[in-house]
Amino acid sequence: MSQTLFKVRTIEDSLKIFRESFNFVKFFKNREQLIELIDAYGRVLAEDIVSSENIPGFNRAMVDGFAVKASDTYGASDSLPAYLELVGEIKMSERPSFLLQSGQAVKISTGGMLPEGADAVVMLEYTENLNPTLVEMSRSVASWENVLREDEDIKKEEIVLKKGHQLRPQDIGLLAALGRANIKVFKRPVLAIISTGDEIIPINQKPNPGQVRDVNNFSLGAAVKQMDCIPFYSGIIKDDEKRLGDELQKCLENPEVDLVLISGGSSVGTRDYTLDVLNSIGPPGVLVHGLALKPGKPTILSLNKQKVFIGLPGHPVSALMVFDNLVREIITDLKGETAHFGQRKTVEALLESNIFSEAGREEYVRVVLKHKDGHLWAEPVLGKSGMISNLAKADGCITVGLNQEGLYQGEKVSVTIF
Amino acid sequence: MSQTLFKVRTIEDSLKIFRESFNFVKFFKNREQLIELIDAYGRVLAEDIVSSENIPGFNRAMVDGFAVKASDTYGASDSLPAYLELVGEIKMSERPSFLLQSGQAVKISTGGMLPEGADAVVMLEYTENLNPTLVEMSRSVASWENVLREDEDIKKEEIVLKKGHQLRPQDIGLLAALGRANIKVFKRPVLAIISTGDEIIPINQKPNPGQVRDVNNFSLGAAVKQMDCIPFYSGIIKDDEKRLGDELQKCLENPEVDLVLISGGSSVGTRDYTLDVLNSIGPPGVLVHGLALKPGKPTILSLNKQKVFIGLPGHPVSALMVFDNLVREIITDLKGETAHFGQRKTVEALLESNIFSEAGREEYVRVVLKHKDGHLWAEPVLGKSGMISNLAKADGCITVGLNQEGLYQGEKVSVTIF
Repeated sequence: MSQTLFKVRTIEDSLKIFRESFNFVKFFKNREQLIELIDAYGRVLAEDIVSSENIPGFNRAMVDGFAVKASDTYGASDSLPAYLELVGEIKMSERPSFLLQSGQAVKISTGGMLPEGADAVVMLEYTENLNPTLVEMSRSVASWENVLREDEDIKKEEIVLKKGHQLRPQDIGLLAALGRANIKVFKRPVLAIISTGDEIIPINQKPNPGQVRDVNNFSLGAAVKQMDCIPFYSGIIKDDEKRLGDELQKCLENPEVDLVLISGGSSVGTRDYTLDVLNSIGPPGVLVHGLALKPGKPTILSLNKQKVFIGLPGHPVSALMVFDNLVREIITDLKGETAHFGQRKTVEALLESNIFSEAGREEYVRVVLKHKDGHLWAEPVLGKSGMISNLAKADGCITVGLNQEGLYQGEKVSVTIF
Repeated sequence: MSQTLFKVRTIEDSLKIFRESFNFVKFFKNREQLIELIDAYGRVLAEDIVSSENIPGFNRAMVDGFAVKASDTYGASDSLPAYLELVGEIKMSERPSFLLQSGQAVKISTGGMLPEGADAVVMLEYTENLNPTLVEMSRSVASWENVLREDEDIKKEEIVLKKGHQLRPQDIGLLAALGRANIKVFKRPVLAIISTGDEIIPINQKPNPGQVRDVNNFSLGAAVKQMDCIPFYSGIIKDDEKRLGDELQKCLENPEVDLVLISGGSSVGTRDYTLDVLNSIGPPGVLVHGLALKPGKPTILSLNKQKVFIGLPGHPVSALMVFDNLVREIITDLKGETAHFGQRKTVEALLESNIFSEAGREEYVRVVLKHKDGHLWAEPVLGKSGMISNLAKADGCITVGLNQEGLYQGEKVSVTIF
């Protein structure tokens, strides 16, 4: 029999217990991977990126116009223009070989390199080319106006991106600018997914009464992909302690698998041998049994020989909710990702009807978003919690906090889009 | 010479012009693809999903307990319990073969099928099993309490997901519940990406002064992947009308390519032959030249023989900003996706300093998000607009509207995370 009592914990406490028990240093040994930049979107950096050069590396014109010494333009205006000697034109990707003298100007395009001696660019529209060697300026420019200086974008030796950063399109662009054709990233976690239960059948079969198709393998697999991790489908295991034990042992020994998601079999009832199995396959065993969460209470968090096993409720809705709130955090840890803003999409909306909840647990309420009277409204989805159609109907979810007893109609709520 | 004047238009107008000119019906012919459900995350449905059965398909117990006739429990309480004859236990995935009679109860687990005659389940914790054939109930239940009726989740013939819906994990779960092992989705758009400019060099080369590495191929490629589309890298084209013309002609004739992104070459200046090329390769030609947008003004939107060509500014920052605001919308159209809530991640924050802007154009201001004094603050990123490091430093972006002349310090702003 299991020695772990069904003692509910908050998500926050559960994560704390996990983080204190897990050996991150050991886990992140040998998790680096050298990949090509072109494949790096969404990956997590395993190195600080230090620039080996100044960017742009030369004083670059930011507009089309004439490169000048700023001091030659001081006081220039429409009524009292400055007149400069035009000494030629700088072509794109050309290194000017001359030194600009006082009283001189040279034509330049956006992106062009300023010659030595020049420290500003007058925009084309404030100039008039009077003859091949004379140009009129009707505006003055300040020193370095319309110029990006050689180290103004990025300085040599500067850390531009930090280890743990998940790469967005603009970061990929920055790495391209630095010439980093290859970068070190962390391996993507592989998550084994197991559905348990005598009543679960493959989705291509027609269920007899009392049977249900295997939803969790599919919905959890998609959620794993959504987090840029790799699902490892382990199929359906009947309610059989021996077979479950064998399967979890296989996952434990498979070095490719980083985390194991078991759905079903975590309710207090006839099937609590999941708990026994998890307490028998390696130390320390079950860390948390029961979350202060609705839906999602019958959840198990176990650590065995440094491998994470999570027993999710069998109900597809509950399983996804626990994934979204507990598993997502743990995966983010295993990705090596430093949390940043905007992990989740949220919108503010007005609550369309009262919600009652018990204090002492968090409650996730699925809502549909609707525009009405110039506002965005969040309308709780009616129906029983086991309904998969409810989750698919919902645009998002609001959280009733641990110590709240409900939310009121008309109240402003933050809706996490899913 | 080009006949199109540089006449700036808003994003909204540009999209309207595009949508009026593009033949969507023709484009969406033959864009369906039958795929396996396991691969369907993020894909866009090309069919309405109609359920061919009732879900759960039988009256299912939602809790562990005893299936009863609700009327047999009316009035039951701690002080006055009801006593029912226990007639057995229903196993998971078993179809009960008997008819429950008045005065009888049968043990049932969550997910089990109620026998004929039963219309409610009394939770285990409100019962006591007095002897093998007698059970005590200390609570009454209403008709259908703790039961999910056979068609309560999904009704046969019900449309559960609509054509144009992008599949989330819960939708994949719903399709699994319906046994849809294969579904029809729209093909993912393929976007050709071309960088133009004599100054652009491959990223593995060391730039000479005046040269810059090819950032846009990489940042735009990543942005295309972020939208679950397929990048088709066409490399770097020198400033040469003939070569650009040949390349665009190739893209036009390639049936695999749905949209062509050309960066650089869209500024008024020496390089406006992009416009001429786009007006020469097929009707109707250039639809929009110039956006009322900062950064992003020198943008071209062209339609040639039903293929979309977009000329983006050469500056990586401007190119990504136009992608994020104009191209993203057009791609969403080509994906066949019906817009839904939460396309973009947004957070509300307080503005840390005043922003001034010209009315008559939209301005995108990059911001860093910071927690301070219990609030989330959006701090505009300083520095010139051509700096790629700025975009990588930023957590998101706020929009100063077309008719706003700025935003004030302390004002609440909506930050689009990127």
